[in-house]
Amino acid sequence: MRFVHETLPQRVRLASGEATAAVAEEVTLLGATRVMVIASEREAGLAESVTTGLPVALTYDDVVMHVPVEVADRARAAADAAEADVIVTVGGGSTTGLGKAVALTTGLPIVAVPTTYAGSEATDVWGLTEGAVKTTGVDRRVLPRAVVYDATLMTGLPVDLSVASGLNALAHCVDSLWAPRTDPINAALAAEGARALRIGLPHVVADPHSIEGREQTIHGAYLAAVAFASAGSGLHHKICHVLGGRYDLPHAQTHAAVLPHVLALNVPNAPEADARLAAAFGTPTALAGLEQLRATVGAPRALRDHGFREDQVADAVAAVLPVVPPSNPTPVTTENLTALLRAVWEGADPA
Amino acid sequence: MRFVHETLPQRVRLASGEATAAVAEEVTLLGATRVMVIASEREAGLAESVTTGLPVALTYDDVVMHVPVEVADRARAAADAAEADVIVTVGGGSTTGLGKAVALTTGLPIVAVPTTYAGSEATDVWGLTEGAVKTTGVDRRVLPRAVVYDATLMTGLPVDLSVASGLNALAHCVDSLWAPRTDPINAALAAEGARALRIGLPHVVADPHSIEGREQTIHGAYLAAVAFASAGSGLHHKICHVLGGRYDLPHAQTHAAVLPHVLALNVPNAPEADARLAAAFGTPTALAGLEQLRATVGAPRALRDHGFREDQVADAVAAVLPVVPPSNPTPVTTENLTALLRAVWEGADPA
Repeated sequence: MRFVHETLPQRVRLASGEATAAVAEEVTLLGATRVMVIASEREAGLAESVTTGLPVALTYDDVVMHVPVEVADRARAAADAAEADVIVTVGGGSTTGLGKAVALTTGLPIVAVPTTYAGSEATDVWGLTEGAVKTTGVDRRVLPRAVVYDATLMTGLPVDLSVASGLNALAHCVDSLWAPRTDPINAALAAEGARALRIGLPHVVADPHSIEGREQTIHGAYLAAVAFASAGSGLHHKICHVLGGRYDLPHAQTHAAVLPHVLALNVPNAPEADARLAAAFGTPTALAGLEQLRATVGAPRALRDHGFREDQVADAVAAVLPVVPPSNPTPVTTENLTALLRAVWEGADPA
Repeated sequence: MRFVHETLPQRVRLASGEATAAVAEEVTLLGATRVMVIASEREAGLAESVTTGLPVALTYDDVVMHVPVEVADRARAAADAAEADVIVTVGGGSTTGLGKAVALTTGLPIVAVPTTYAGSEATDVWGLTEGAVKTTGVDRRVLPRAVVYDATLMTGLPVDLSVASGLNALAHCVDSLWAPRTDPINAALAAEGARALRIGLPHVVADPHSIEGREQTIHGAYLAAVAFASAGSGLHHKICHVLGGRYDLPHAQTHAAVLPHVLALNVPNAPEADARLAAAFGTPTALAGLEQLRATVGAPRALRDHGFREDQVADAVAAVLPVVPPSNPTPVTTENLTALLRAVWEGADPA
């Protein structure tokens, strides 16, 4: 056992039905008097409700996916012009991301009110795109000071999107267990995240308006992001990054299809990760728990249904091999990676 | 699910055999050039070894249990006179406590190198005594910026002391699960702490020089302190505080004897805590796991062997009842508390 674990400071509140009061308290605690509200047009109504009674100096809705630099620059200029002293973001990953871009140069504190399970609010990672190139970085200034979760803001999130987003969070949990900076602290948070997602997602599928299901999913996705940011990218994320980038495959389906095969590859050489996940799922093995959950929520299986072609397997193997993390429990070879990606392509049961 | 969880910033390193290099790195990261080393006389040799090569401005060994105010004042004056810009503590709870007392008024950052499983290094709680009165408080300034754990510094800690200290940490984990500010985040950390202590303590008993056993115990005790500081005192700690304060019973034995009875009282109304601990212990129930561990490490059972008298049970019941936390899962009555304390007195098996 040997590690350096950095715990980042953040106050997280789960207050379903009470986001407005919770946000007001956080703004008051920060001593702020000129609020910049960031929310996309689509969530304008939600944002207005959540920021009722706040000293709003500026409401900003020019939110664009992947935070283009010019969008960030305009938002920064607007924050300056309005003399904002706090940013309140209401929305998903792109909205939180724009808040982070503004915080990065202005140093303004962020109070984040997430409406999806993206998890960006839990990390100090920022991202900006210039043309087609995405740059990411880590900076303590972009970590939201406080996060306010309110399950009632999420009951409208469609089931398929919720499942995709929740399985993406689960992939963060699982992959954290053998990622380059894995340690027993982020592993414990990852296992708790998996436990909560295993409880929450079937609830959401059975009843999208279930507050309990949404709360468990929120809690799980939050810890998934904390654990992943701490542990880094493991084999699963390296594979998904290659598949998504080279063949333009859909993000969520790719994660859902790849995860059980990476788990099956690694558990024989990762008994502790297996035991942690099995305990979290309440099943004899990690794989049994994941398969049970995937069946319950109707997770995507075969990537050939989503644009991946059999003749791309060899190319994908060649692209993944050089980026396999040295920390991966099972040595990755052309043979086992080919078998894995073929199984992903055809949706075979994980071995 | 409804909570406010505050995560405190800290970097924790587990680097067995490499404390000296790790401490030097932390001091450098803080940009410090005048180190105040705090260590008791007994640990002078250890402290010298751990701080080799540092720019030490002052070595301070006037460490007294419970941090009397006059001891704190002298240490603060010494820090000022030496123009120290960082505190490095090497020792147990009293040593860390003196470092915190100095940090409280001077704002100096602390790098803590613990040599016991006390856990003070993981919290922002300070304590000072004036005469017989102990005052405690919470202040972000006293939270060590970094903690460096090195199992080789602990292999000399006697087995009985290690077990007592480890069971005390386990009590923090268990009691956190129904403490006033319990939430699923600190519960996950508490469960991980219990898991690690369950693995570590039998190793330490079997072989006090086992680095693996010491590392698991360190990791467990660290998370126990993090979880407890976040969740607050539950019924177990209220009972132990009364028993210790009124009848001068030994701290460690009291915790060891009381814990299974509080667990047995609460699990019927705390199924989630039961499930979390059972999963952490790898046993069918939480109680089975705790009893197995207590048997393995030879934990104290009957408090009548340690000075508690049968005729004090009624007095103890009367003293505990008014301080029972409202969050306790099982309603506490004169009847069930009397039965509990009688069982603790005679060392009966928990029901």
